Amino acid sequence: MDLIALRTANPDHWTKATAIRALTLDAIVAANSGHSGMPMGMADVATVLFEKHLKFDATNPTWPDRDRFILSAGHGSMLLYSLLYLTGNPEITLEEIKNFRQMGAKTAGHPENFLAKGIETTTGPLGQGISNAVGFAIAEEIQRAQYGKKVVDHYTYVIAGDGCLMEGVSQEAIGLAGRLELSKLVVLWDNNNITIDGTVDIADRTDQVRRFAASGWHVIEIDGHDPAAIDAALIQAKGSKKPTMIACKTHIALGHAAQDTSKGHGALTDQGQLLAAKEAYGWAHGPFEVPADVKSAWEAIGSRGAAERAAWQARFAELSERKQAEFTRAYAFEAPKKLSGAIRALKKQVSEEQPKWATRKSSEEVLKVVNPIMTETVGGSADLTGSNNTKTADLGIFLPENRKGRYIHWGIREHGMAAAMNGMALHGGIRPYGGTFMCFTDYARPAMRLAALMKIPSVFVMTHDSIGLGEDGPTHQPVEHLAISRATPNTYVFRPADTVETAEAWELALTFQQSPSVLSLTRQNLPTLRTEHKTKNLTAQGGYVLAEATGKRQVILIATGSEVEIAMQARAALEAEGIGTRVVSMPCMELFAEQDEAYRKRVLPAGPVRVGIEAAMRAGGWDRWLLGERGREAKAGFIGMTGFGASAPAEELYEKFGITAAATVAKAKELLG
Amino acid sequence: MDLIALRTANPDHWTKATAIRALTLDAIVAANSGHSGMPMGMADVATVLFEKHLKFDATNPTWPDRDRFILSAGHGSMLLYSLLYLTGNPEITLEEIKNFRQMGAKTAGHPENFLAKGIETTTGPLGQGISNAVGFAIAEEIQRAQYGKKVVDHYTYVIAGDGCLMEGVSQEAIGLAGRLELSKLVVLWDNNNITIDGTVDIADRTDQVRRFAASGWHVIEIDGHDPAAIDAALIQAKGSKKPTMIACKTHIALGHAAQDTSKGHGALTDQGQLLAAKEAYGWAHGPFEVPADVKSAWEAIGSRGAAERAAWQARFAELSERKQAEFTRAYAFEAPKKLSGAIRALKKQVSEEQPKWATRKSSEEVLKVVNPIMTETVGGSADLTGSNNTKTADLGIFLPENRKGRYIHWGIREHGMAAAMNGMALHGGIRPYGGTFMCFTDYARPAMRLAALMKIPSVFVMTHDSIGLGEDGPTHQPVEHLAISRATPNTYVFRPADTVETAEAWELALTFQQSPSVLSLTRQNLPTLRTEHKTKNLTAQGGYVLAEATGKRQVILIATGSEVEIAMQARAALEAEGIGTRVVSMPCMELFAEQDEAYRKRVLPAGPVRVGIEAAMRAGGWDRWLLGERGREAKAGFIGMTGFGASAPAEELYEKFGITAAATVAKAKELLG
Repeated sequence: MDLIALRTANPDHWTKATAIRALTLDAIVAANSGHSGMPMGMADVATVLFEKHLKFDATNPTWPDRDRFILSAGHGSMLLYSLLYLTGNPEITLEEIKNFRQMGAKTAGHPENFLAKGIETTTGPLGQGISNAVGFAIAEEIQRAQYGKKVVDHYTYVIAGDGCLMEGVSQEAIGLAGRLELSKLVVLWDNNNITIDGTVDIADRTDQVRRFAASGWHVIEIDGHDPAAIDAALIQAKGSKKPTMIACKTHIALGHAAQDTSKGHGALTDQGQLLAAKEAYGWAHGPFEVPADVKSAWEAIGSRGAAERAAWQARFAELSERKQAEFTRAYAFEAPKKLSGAIRALKKQVSEEQPKWATRKSSEEVLKVVNPIMTETVGGSADLTGSNNTKTADLGIFLPENRKGRYIHWGIREHGMAAAMNGMALHGGIRPYGGTFMCFTDYARPAMRLAALMKIPSVFVMTHDSIGLGEDGPTHQPVEHLAISRATPNTYVFRPADTVETAEAWELALTFQQSPSVLSLTRQNLPTLRTEHKTKNLTAQGGYVLAEATGKRQVILIATGSEVEIAMQARAALEAEGIGTRVVSMPCMELFAEQDEAYRKRVLPAGPVRVGIEAAMRAGGWDRWLLGERGREAKAGFIGMTGFGASAPAEELYEKFGITAAATVAKAKELLG
Repeated sequence: MDLIALRTANPDHWTKATAIRALTLDAIVAANSGHSGMPMGMADVATVLFEKHLKFDATNPTWPDRDRFILSAGHGSMLLYSLLYLTGNPEITLEEIKNFRQMGAKTAGHPENFLAKGIETTTGPLGQGISNAVGFAIAEEIQRAQYGKKVVDHYTYVIAGDGCLMEGVSQEAIGLAGRLELSKLVVLWDNNNITIDGTVDIADRTDQVRRFAASGWHVIEIDGHDPAAIDAALIQAKGSKKPTMIACKTHIALGHAAQDTSKGHGALTDQGQLLAAKEAYGWAHGPFEVPADVKSAWEAIGSRGAAERAAWQARFAELSERKQAEFTRAYAFEAPKKLSGAIRALKKQVSEEQPKWATRKSSEEVLKVVNPIMTETVGGSADLTGSNNTKTADLGIFLPENRKGRYIHWGIREHGMAAAMNGMALHGGIRPYGGTFMCFTDYARPAMRLAALMKIPSVFVMTHDSIGLGEDGPTHQPVEHLAISRATPNTYVFRPADTVETAEAWELALTFQQSPSVLSLTRQNLPTLRTEHKTKNLTAQGGYVLAEATGKRQVILIATGSEVEIAMQARAALEAEGIGTRVVSMPCMELFAEQDEAYRKRVLPAGPVRVGIEAAMRAGGWDRWLLGERGREAKAGFIGMTGFGASAPAEELYEKFGITAAATVAKAKELLG
């Protein structure tokens, strides 16, 4: 690469881009860790994007109508941190740059959206950013349709690497964006032909231009170090009716001894090579030193959008007060005041009518109440709409011809759905929910984990939640998936037993502002067990006494979801034999764990025999070895699954695997001795 | 669709294909569940494939050199069961067809490889079959290179639907197959433009032909109901130097009232419509009735390969005895006799030399011993070779120009890797292992679950297994992934504490014949703790006493992996204060749970305070509520993670999250009171 030619062709541009490269090298040498090559390779592209195109106001990084910039290749985090620092982001100071990857720094190894405003999403696990971006772009379209172009009108720009494009989820994202004609989505592909193991072509020879085109994208190929070409491509992209992918041919670790090699991908920490690279750049400044004129030039870029933001503020003020309040409320993830009253009314009604519904159907009935009063909900399903019961009649289908549609046919793309849901929520103004079979939590899992890490209150509607789905067999029968979601930090797992608990679970999920929820719902019909209306949301306590023992309490049955019915049947049988039996419904273990000890002890007092009932793995893990195999407070047993399911009608499977009232009664009596 | 024209154009073909359609309709009506449309749409393609191309011998379904037929669109299982029954598979009898989806039937809702020979893989979760198939095709290439074309020379055929192609993992498979030039892989795409939610184009308009071509595939487009076109395409495919995708334009639920509709995808159970369809087919036979001449014609197809198989047997007998034994041993997943001696020698050496290695490095040292004596191992990494330490010098890279290569650069494709590993193992003759960061278990998870369900002894080498990876931060730090793998049935999770335990874990993993293993390995260096050589594999017991208390045993510290070192430090501190402390190393909870109760009680006797130490979530789940929060056998505490990690140097993170010897000592003393 002829650096002299680059330097002289456009010295102003070169100096700005070099500031990024120099900061990257300095920060990674200081941290002795990080990924140098990507920021050095993509500095030119990012500089032109920020200087000439990106609509933003650096000191107001949460301005709702800003363009979104997503660093899908999150390992190149120093690119983002450099840009934020240089343009004047209030939180990413020079001190933060110097503390790159250190304890407590906002400049974490990979970008983490919750550490500083201006970091739009959390990336690092590859393919996530580009898939989030589809959600950002959908959110923009829906909000534009809802609030008008004067208030919502912005682009979503993504920098993605070869790793992002190799991950399968990128295909789901590309297919969706093409079909949905998300014309305001622009992907800048860092086409450097290098991965950790070698050149890309040791593992892939996909013609990415052809691949994107096959899914309906507008594609442009440029030299990623030519500012004029970058600018021209971005102008073209913004005028396109399709999403645009700009293939930017770049040199990883440009100008460094490790340029164009796998070594250049990682941490370049050699001090001599750093100095040589700076020399080659013509950058005669010390570590972390950015000359005042260069910093000023970058800050001018950072304040370029200030006037536009002020004008936007004025236009926003022209919206009706109701619209302004709605917009602001949705951005804050605040549920509308009407919600709890509406949920209560539904609870009262079903307590009286006592329908025998599958909880997936109960969930649909709740959504019929919720969707009309929460215009920010956007629902969808990974091609199981009729099975997940996620669509209500008032939600139109989101398509190019109907941008007001609030229901998305995600296709057979659980992972892409979950990642795009993350993006919609991060964009702001949208509260997404999406459905698939609970077993396919597996497919969506990488994005569900990130929802938890990013503190996004998405709702994952997971139906067909046990062997109760019957004939489809073990490939479709979750047994470990409750344990998986429960093991994930900051995730609330609800397994409601009837329509009342389903309504309560939804109310909680829609009230959370910083945590995702998983709703575990049945395929099979269940009776209404909460037949006495209570205003209070009992599910909010996680577990509660559903039925008390008559006489001396000898047994406590603890159950969730479809197995609460079995617990109630077992209780009837035990009580008939004079054995006082309490039933505890525990729709959410995480919330129960959050209750104070006094409440937990009231619900689960020491003494009586305990039997847990759940058509899933007990998944004891550590506690079995720490607490002892038999339990201190009570003799305890578990009625559930010990392995994979089987293909047969549901009732027969419950018999086969011994998840029945009779087995529960027998276990309780065995423990009573 | 003009059925009359189809019937008359090629009546022999029509009758054979109609037998599949009729059986499908009958079975699904009887079961009142299933998926009718796909078998009815793809019956013509399958008939031509089986009649004219597939090399198989129906009564010897495990003949190693048979062509493999993979039904990636597994919901269409009646297509496969019909073909197996009609051609004379010994296990899929008419009785089994009549018992479709019933308890104990081999004809489960989705094909399950472990229920009957002739079912090559377990499908249903979409995208898996086509990704398994890449592994099948790789295995064929490697075995052909190892044993010669006379013994190994067969094709892998896949039927995939729109759902398979929309799942992201299919892109990983397509990219791999294209790059690796797997010319003996043929995908037949059921291009029917229908999914559950509607026509495909509500969610996707990808030009699949262009997409496959972009990744280096040979692509052919045909009418999937024209036998001559199907035949011609298959002939072309077999002559191609690239993998081939045949786009078969078909009508879902051909000839039924639900043809070409979403309804046609599912269970068509209307008796009147069934009769009307049979009428339209010209099929005047009762339920499950296949006229003798039609059955004979199909059985002739089934025995077409008998002579070829016999000739193969003769050629196989010409291999050297050593080669024959090796081939047979590898197919049976039997470890070579030399293995345990070699592992013992390594254990002895490291017990003496006491290296301070990260367990990922320990794993590499074990592989250096294993790979030369197990020619069936095929290793790889999802673009983290240098970090996962999965490559040994003797393994060449598997590429078109080196089919003897036993190391695969999978690219940034964790899911595709795991699914292809499943395929390699299912093909037979290969014992695959593959690496990525443990956190990215998330990406590979759908295929890892299927490995467990399918009873495949793959080894997943998961490095960087805790906050010990340091600066990369919480996106890369597993905290719940041990719990996830431990919750999965039939999966052994090993978290070795040093090189000796790593060698023992590998020995066990390589000896399993029906279970996958997950190796949880550190990035950071660890001391050798097993400094006294024992011939016996102590890890085989799951947990064992690593260090005994001197004097009265007051505390038991239970730890895994990198935290065993902390336990040993804490023990030293406690013992110095006169508090007798036992350390239990528990590298595999599943194996410990399998020991008899007497052994478990010996290792964990009631009485002493217990403290668990693991840099991961405690993930108690049910046991906390059943066993009581404080434990019966002992007062118990846990030193570990309670949420996501952070980005900082590893040692600082251990301090920050309180996973230290000092915290362990404090916890033990607190519990002692």
